[in-house]
Amino acid sequence: MTVINDAAVAAQLTELYLKYEKALCTNDIETLDNLFWDAPEVVRFGVTENLYGSDEVRAFRKGRSPVNVEREMFNLKVVTFDADTAAVTLEFRRVMDGVVRLGRQSQMWRKFPQGWKIVSAHVSFLPV
Amino acid sequence: MTVINDAAVAAQLTELYLKYEKALCTNDIETLDNLFWDAPEVVRFGVTENLYGSDEVRAFRKGRSPVNVEREMFNLKVVTFDADTAAVTLEFRRVMDGVVRLGRQSQMWRKFPQGWKIVSAHVSFLPV
Repeated sequence: MTVINDAAVAAQLTELYLKYEKALCTNDIETLDNLFWDAPEVVRFGVTENLYGSDEVRAFRKGRSPVNVEREMFNLKVVTFDADTAAVTLEFRRVMDGVVRLGRQSQMWRKFPQGWKIVSAHVSFLPV
Repeated sequence: MTVINDAAVAAQLTELYLKYEKALCTNDIETLDNLFWDAPEVVRFGVTENLYGSDEVRAFRKGRSPVNVEREMFNLKVVTFDADTAAVTLEFRRVMDGVVRLGRQSQMWRKFPQGWKIVSAHVSFLPV
């Protein structure tokens, strides 16, 4: 029987996710890197790019402008599966060129001996 | 120690994913429904909609036009974690209003006593 949203596991993931969100909005690259799985199998589909493997993810973060990375998040949902796996989704609003855009983010987290890591991520905007 | 891409598990997930892709391109709603997790916690971020819970996912499929659902898939990646969890990602080309669009799809799969189910999914297009 799979345990969905055990209170302690869900609380741990929510705390970890909020740490990630803060790192994202302050462009804290070291924390972002530490929370992503360091493996050739990691995948990150961003708004304008498809990244495969931790080398591509790291290179993207280093090359990204630290300006205007802030966003307003809502509908954060953390769903944990036993004590090893979690789905974290959210929606966000971001102002781009004066226009409010609505985005969505999905992350899959897995617990390793080194801790919880994001193993797959996808970020996109709804059409205007 | 997490086992990544055990050959038997990865082969099983690849077969399951190809069953899903065929069902998608033929609008086989029953198969699509059976492969999605039947739970209020399931999330599907589609190209133009954010769906929460299996009732919303099912209603979307029923209401969707069965015309022009075909697409050409590439870069299919199946990453399995032990024998209970998998990330399935792919890119696709689809012609919309005469324009070739490039899409990305991410799915998180979890094994339940009833079998493997998609517990979170995200589909989006890259900007034109």
